[in-house]
Amino acid sequence: MIILTKYLENFDWEGIELHPYKDNDGNPSFKDVTRQTIFKEDKVNGLEVRYFEIAASGHTSLEKHEHTHIVVPIRGSGSCFVGNTVTELRLHDCVYVPSWSWHQFRASESEPLGFLCLVNAERDRPTLPTAHEVKELQQDSEIARFIRPRLINP
Amino acid sequence: MIILTKYLENFDWEGIELHPYKDNDGNPSFKDVTRQTIFKEDKVNGLEVRYFEIAASGHTSLEKHEHTHIVVPIRGSGSCFVGNTVTELRLHDCVYVPSWSWHQFRASESEPLGFLCLVNAERDRPTLPTAHEVKELQQDSEIARFIRPRLINP
Repeated sequence: MIILTKYLENFDWEGIELHPYKDNDGNPSFKDVTRQTIFKEDKVNGLEVRYFEIAASGHTSLEKHEHTHIVVPIRGSGSCFVGNTVTELRLHDCVYVPSWSWHQFRASESEPLGFLCLVNAERDRPTLPTAHEVKELQQDSEIARFIRPRLINP
Repeated sequence: MIILTKYLENFDWEGIELHPYKDNDGNPSFKDVTRQTIFKEDKVNGLEVRYFEIAASGHTSLEKHEHTHIVVPIRGSGSCFVGNTVTELRLHDCVYVPSWSWHQFRASESEPLGFLCLVNAERDRPTLPTAHEVKELQQDSEIARFIRPRLINP
């Protein structure tokens, strides 16, 4: 059993593969994001910790799901939209993403945003917003300025 | 619902109280440790993230329990004993504490060790070793040198 996953340098962990954030189907909902699963517990209601890194000016998908997240930035800076709120993110802030809350994370323009994301190892798949749902979110001008929805929605 | 718990500076979070690691009953099993519960999810199988800080030369309790931990240092350096292994700890390492594994964390002599600890919000209470169990652990000379059991065991 793995007890220690060693941090090397430059946000790289020993034996942990760097993956694209998601499969790119040619119609991406995100921009310049990588994913590393640092630890995943193999049991019912197991814990899992991932490290996501968004390059400067990049963003994760605008999405929602039943499972929840706890997010703690450990590199750079950025901002996020969660629920009804757009907020800046700095090192060691702690963000909670409640069940079925729309959310999206963005790096700042000048530096990446890297964060630990704590989740249950068993979880549902994310849902992207429909064009109608995007329009509803855009009723709020601050949210409209912040979000980067997939350009072509089914 | 709290979405953002803001990090202020010097490992202090907005609105989060600093607590002693545990109640001190006059026969402490630990030395110079503080605890902050940064976020606790209020639901079945909820997630919880705490920040523990061990002052230089301090240590947590030598203990075990059914629940598991994922630990990620974000300040300073130290070392830990988990299962059968003593290992050094550096920033952004990731340590897994399996169910019923004896474990103890120590800060280095010259600086504190501060770490995020991810757990399930519902969990059992820790068990301290009996004098007999301490003796068993001390059969291994490296473990014997590392561990700081409670001095007077019941």
